[in-house]
Amino acid sequence: MKKIKGGVTAAQGFEAADTAAGIKYQGRTDMALIFSKAPCTAAGTFTSNVVKAAPVMWDRHIVRETDTKVHAVVVNSGIANACTGKEGLDICAATAEAASEALNIPKESVLVGSTGVIGMQIPVDKIVGGVKVLAQKKAGTLEAGEAASKAIMTTDTHNKEIALQIGLGGKSVTIGGMAKGSGMIHPGMCTMLAYITTDAAIEKDLLQKAVSDAVVDTFNMISVDGDMSTNDTLLVLANGLAGNPEITSEDADYHTFYEALFTVCRTLAMAMAGDGEGADRLIESVVVHADTKANARILAKSVIQSNLTKAAIFGKDANWGRVLCALGYSGAQFDPEHVDLYFAGKDANGKEQKMLIFTNGSAAEYSEEKAKELLSGESVQIISDMHMGAESATAWGCDLTYDYVKINADYRS
Amino acid sequence: MKKIKGGVTAAQGFEAADTAAGIKYQGRTDMALIFSKAPCTAAGTFTSNVVKAAPVMWDRHIVRETDTKVHAVVVNSGIANACTGKEGLDICAATAEAASEALNIPKESVLVGSTGVIGMQIPVDKIVGGVKVLAQKKAGTLEAGEAASKAIMTTDTHNKEIALQIGLGGKSVTIGGMAKGSGMIHPGMCTMLAYITTDAAIEKDLLQKAVSDAVVDTFNMISVDGDMSTNDTLLVLANGLAGNPEITSEDADYHTFYEALFTVCRTLAMAMAGDGEGADRLIESVVVHADTKANARILAKSVIQSNLTKAAIFGKDANWGRVLCALGYSGAQFDPEHVDLYFAGKDANGKEQKMLIFTNGSAAEYSEEKAKELLSGESVQIISDMHMGAESATAWGCDLTYDYVKINADYRS
Repeated sequence: MKKIKGGVTAAQGFEAADTAAGIKYQGRTDMALIFSKAPCTAAGTFTSNVVKAAPVMWDRHIVRETDTKVHAVVVNSGIANACTGKEGLDICAATAEAASEALNIPKESVLVGSTGVIGMQIPVDKIVGGVKVLAQKKAGTLEAGEAASKAIMTTDTHNKEIALQIGLGGKSVTIGGMAKGSGMIHPGMCTMLAYITTDAAIEKDLLQKAVSDAVVDTFNMISVDGDMSTNDTLLVLANGLAGNPEITSEDADYHTFYEALFTVCRTLAMAMAGDGEGADRLIESVVVHADTKANARILAKSVIQSNLTKAAIFGKDANWGRVLCALGYSGAQFDPEHVDLYFAGKDANGKEQKMLIFTNGSAAEYSEEKAKELLSGESVQIISDMHMGAESATAWGCDLTYDYVKINADYRS
Repeated sequence: MKKIKGGVTAAQGFEAADTAAGIKYQGRTDMALIFSKAPCTAAGTFTSNVVKAAPVMWDRHIVRETDTKVHAVVVNSGIANACTGKEGLDICAATAEAASEALNIPKESVLVGSTGVIGMQIPVDKIVGGVKVLAQKKAGTLEAGEAASKAIMTTDTHNKEIALQIGLGGKSVTIGGMAKGSGMIHPGMCTMLAYITTDAAIEKDLLQKAVSDAVVDTFNMISVDGDMSTNDTLLVLANGLAGNPEITSEDADYHTFYEALFTVCRTLAMAMAGDGEGADRLIESVVVHADTKANARILAKSVIQSNLTKAAIFGKDANWGRVLCALGYSGAQFDPEHVDLYFAGKDANGKEQKMLIFTNGSAAEYSEEKAKELLSGESVQIISDMHMGAESATAWGCDLTYDYVKINADYRS
């Protein structure tokens, strides 16, 4: 598995584009297109929120209930097209219609995605106008992919891309993706918008299985603020242009592909967590030696969801009692007397350090000053050793800062 | 039911005291005593966090596993005595021992409570010294009760007291209480520290039933930050001095008593929510016409737990999409097309107003300016009409502010 440059246009046959359609933002790009001339097998996971945005309903139907091949994804930022009733669904149809015409592809082969403010209607003339520009502008360059990844940002501070290369059946296969955060991140299925493209040839059912499996320990293990979005969407498009023998069973090729897909998902998920709204640093919560995998996940997530722990990390304060408290209310059973707690991170010299903080039911001997050093880096690790079994899990979140409040008290204005 | 002045010393035979024992805070009171010469029937509910503070284990044993009559509660603020191992339990025993000696009561009749930083040990000489001062100073005045309610505060901005009078069997019965918030408030059983005293005569099992029932729609329906404390404790002491015929069955007297207890619990719970760490305003989430009581509670709580909704209310922004989103991920099933959403509060002239915000699957016609007015008061009501059945529930929370982050990034220092 080799990391290469690029994102959604890294794989063969994929093109992308961006444009400033004026949907909400003034003077910045707010629409993106992913396009493949070759028809794509599509798989995806979607929000489990009862309130589903119109584009989620549109995509979910095509990807999960039909065998339709997909050619394009049209995404806008600024307005989420959620809680918009029938009018919202009509806008999805109008967008697909416009893309169908401009790109000369079937309407049912167009997926759509939206992110931004809930409740507002997207001006249909603007999105249709945007689609026409995107169709003209699309290109297979890495720059076009990068531009697309920027156009889907809302409160993100930077774009999120990754691409990997693997070998399948003697052929070089590429898998790349882009994603955006950075608030309302608490996936119940997958998180916000993430689009992955690959030139691998793989059967639809197996692609869906790989996606559904991969999200469990990647997108579903991050949380910025505990608010599960109405728009969560992860789509994977596979156009088969790499020419590898089609993956039709869970053989060695499937596992090689799965590992690469998993790495792409984890990288994008961690990037989302670290770029959570207002975040100063990534928090990685590692639970080891839990009794069951389910409990390991529950415990790891409870720590990164604790507002008090998040605020303490913002303050570079080794207030470990809040970590133990969060483990305690997670719902998983354990004996607090048998938990060891560690903080890990880089010290002032940039060296990785791991520090025992709590053991045998009370505080370990540690230096508060040294702990503060470890908590001052770009990323902080909290390790909870449950001493109960062999299962482990990792969850990713971010600190809770003044800027999170600022961003979300002012978001609509 | 008549509201009267006072708190834990309002009922006959109860005394209280405060002192500055120097446990953590400099120059402010940090210990409180509640005392009844007449033996009290005790009932209580405690945190369901797996990590239970030492005083929770001490009290839980006495109140829930024995028939011991209670004479005193000794509470300290500053240090929570949680995650403190065997040494923490020894400190509870030493505190009870000191109170036993100073007040001439059995050691097993002394309950203890702690709130503050997790993980630190309480200096035993200071708490024992404090107990001696409290025993000397105790008085049955309303002022002594008020002083006690101030001594248990941590990040609270004001003390929380209430007292009510009812008639039972021809006798006047008083029930009063005090409580403290204001962070780590997300009760799974009841929240933080709340102490209620009454001179009613009531059997222990019935008192416990009344307490367990009353918390469900009061303390268990508030959340400040989603963090369930290790120390949550609600204690009710009944010394029988009112001389009412002892309540021994769920008769009319029981129901009169229950209503008063419920009102005391709800008043203290709402005061905690409104005085949540850093809070500018109380948020009351009312769910009506839900299909089941359980779903009504789940939906109501989901709204006040949403960081995004809380931040929007801080910004006086009628960002109702976040409310609908929070209903959607609550776990309760419903059809978003059939939900009506209202904001209610006081307008600029101080008049109560209710405004329809969302109906028939999309935004209602409403004035953003008028909505901002309603969201600018001390308390804001969010009403979700599910149109599914006859059940309703109310939950209380507060907005998410810069000060919440400030308080919790700096709490230990």
